[in-house]
Amino acid sequence: MLVQKYMDMLSAKSVIRQLSEFATARGQEIGYGNVFDYSLGNPSVPVPQAFTDACMELLATQDTGKLHGYSPSLGITSVREAVAASLERRFGLPYRKEHIFMASGAAGALAHALRLVTEPGDEVLTFAPYFPEYGPYVNLTGAELKVVPPDTAAFQVNFGKFQEMLGPKVMAVLINTPNNPSGVVYSADTLQRLTDILREKSALYGHNIYLISDEPYREIVFDGAEVTCVSEFYDNTIMCYSFSKSLSLPGERIGYVAVNPRCPDAETMVNMCGQISRGTGHNCPPSLIQLAVARVIDQTADLSVYERNRNLLYTALQELGFTCVKPGGTFYIFPKALEEDAKAFCQKALQYDLVLVPGDTFGAPGYFRMAYCIDTEKVERSLPAFRKFVEAEYH
Amino acid sequence: MLVQKYMDMLSAKSVIRQLSEFATARGQEIGYGNVFDYSLGNPSVPVPQAFTDACMELLATQDTGKLHGYSPSLGITSVREAVAASLERRFGLPYRKEHIFMASGAAGALAHALRLVTEPGDEVLTFAPYFPEYGPYVNLTGAELKVVPPDTAAFQVNFGKFQEMLGPKVMAVLINTPNNPSGVVYSADTLQRLTDILREKSALYGHNIYLISDEPYREIVFDGAEVTCVSEFYDNTIMCYSFSKSLSLPGERIGYVAVNPRCPDAETMVNMCGQISRGTGHNCPPSLIQLAVARVIDQTADLSVYERNRNLLYTALQELGFTCVKPGGTFYIFPKALEEDAKAFCQKALQYDLVLVPGDTFGAPGYFRMAYCIDTEKVERSLPAFRKFVEAEYH
Repeated sequence: MLVQKYMDMLSAKSVIRQLSEFATARGQEIGYGNVFDYSLGNPSVPVPQAFTDACMELLATQDTGKLHGYSPSLGITSVREAVAASLERRFGLPYRKEHIFMASGAAGALAHALRLVTEPGDEVLTFAPYFPEYGPYVNLTGAELKVVPPDTAAFQVNFGKFQEMLGPKVMAVLINTPNNPSGVVYSADTLQRLTDILREKSALYGHNIYLISDEPYREIVFDGAEVTCVSEFYDNTIMCYSFSKSLSLPGERIGYVAVNPRCPDAETMVNMCGQISRGTGHNCPPSLIQLAVARVIDQTADLSVYERNRNLLYTALQELGFTCVKPGGTFYIFPKALEEDAKAFCQKALQYDLVLVPGDTFGAPGYFRMAYCIDTEKVERSLPAFRKFVEAEYH
Repeated sequence: MLVQKYMDMLSAKSVIRQLSEFATARGQEIGYGNVFDYSLGNPSVPVPQAFTDACMELLATQDTGKLHGYSPSLGITSVREAVAASLERRFGLPYRKEHIFMASGAAGALAHALRLVTEPGDEVLTFAPYFPEYGPYVNLTGAELKVVPPDTAAFQVNFGKFQEMLGPKVMAVLINTPNNPSGVVYSADTLQRLTDILREKSALYGHNIYLISDEPYREIVFDGAEVTCVSEFYDNTIMCYSFSKSLSLPGERIGYVAVNPRCPDAETMVNMCGQISRGTGHNCPPSLIQLAVARVIDQTADLSVYERNRNLLYTALQELGFTCVKPGGTFYIFPKALEEDAKAFCQKALQYDLVLVPGDTFGAPGYFRMAYCIDTEKVERSLPAFRKFVEAEYH
């Protein structure tokens, strides 16, 4: 018969999706330009012309058998080399192709990383606020996701709760910095403390606790900050990267797993990814897209709009009296709602055509997420609506 | 720690891969043109120009946000509609987009189909000779693949053994027609008997037994034969299709699951595939490739070379005294070896630069597979080598 667990998932409708559907429906009434849709984390800036040119040139010049032929299961060798060389250039760690497994986006990378180091019955810790898809990503492998409650002061790490929850069944800790939904970048101090604890507990329990670092927003950092390399802090780091946000390519499903070159089992782990693929049916990312991405490996889309939007929104929200941690990157901001029940708050906001996502979805009730990957002009137009909403409902 | 089952898989080297590596290495000595490499099932005919043109036009004319943006998790709506319309046109069953889930090749389609209807502990039956990847595909879901021994007379179905093995733990039967490695197309009589048994046993055991039909070779049939639609024979059929062979696109990972419109749960099953993806990390096939394939949905590469090669080889092998079922499709042929131990037979053939794969790999010892997706000119040049081999070793 049909498998019950997937049937059950059908009835649990995603809050984000429902809000996005509301926005679309409301757009049909009043014009989508008039709906201030902050629901979806969909990149809004164009793909770099260089990527399009790379695809066109490959299509125009390459033998089709080679261009569209089977990729090796770990990814096309020249592409793995290009990724490794780029990581080495940027972060100074001795990455080689042997440390790289090409994956279909961050979702694909995480599916492989999780299966490398966890089995049914194991636990994986992550920190609220967190990307809600981590739930099914982890739980459908048979391991169990446990969520460490938020450090609401700064959305760094609640170390007290983390230490309590880091028991012997935890085989991996999953972090996401820059963070969806808070927009916060983990500080060097946070990463140092976190990895010190992982080293200590690995020794105590007599098994490695791996750090799975989900980094799709790595290139979107503000105020001229340097991009932090999580792997520098901890040998047993499995980096999961996606080009979805940096190149605005979420539909093309392209990313990679990069195991820290200092991890003693790095090469074995990459080879294991090729075996894991046989079970997940992944095989390899599309060959044309692999080859095109390799040609623009150090480029990004023009991401400056996200910082402009952050500046506008952060200033305006503060003026309106919101408590809010200033995002250091991504295209999200995660303010405190003006009443305890963020669901009620977001429900009221809909009357002002403001589509906001309650923090409950991200394991942090009382807050709400705004995805500001939209035109700056629309952000500007949303501010009067925000003012009207706050003044009418909360003054 | 690292997960043992994937570590263990690393040491089990694929026979096909080893032979392919031998062919490459030998090619470096004597020129690859002089190695008669029949090891790999890699399409050898060019991608249709219409597909390349479709990609180029999409890249040149579409907004990049739409072209490369997130695809819905079931696939792009217009693409699902194009697939459904094509299937309805060709096979007369009332396919609608609600019956279609876009998947990353046949491997991705099978990963979803298997998870729809089997849980750990369940059994899946397939028929020897069979594609050896079915082993990890099934076993890594937690279900168990059981292989029905071959009907060596015609490489149809060994019904006696099938009935014996079709116990109450079997939730799905996995077939592949046209077949890799035998090249045989299941007859209407075979499909009728097989599905009659499935209906009977489903009633007896009180649960549906699903038929998973792996159809990557569907378009490669010879002698002007009509393409058989397995789904016509059985309501609870889950069709798994790939464009890898029909359009020579194995690296682009594009295919679909099509649940029979007559299956009462078809729409639910397609929706469930979208949930299964969250666990496998698949998400959706690449958006550019989805859109391009939809534009050439009824086209194929020029597949006629495979029939020419089949004719040449079948005639030559018969003249040389081989026992051989005539392939009705694919680009494989599966003759009986000239000694009982097909591995020894294939080992000897290497001395004549003939790279053949022993049937043991496919669950049919005593036979060998030739993948004749190579230039006809090379097939012709291989025939004297074959004659020399047979005369020197077996006369």
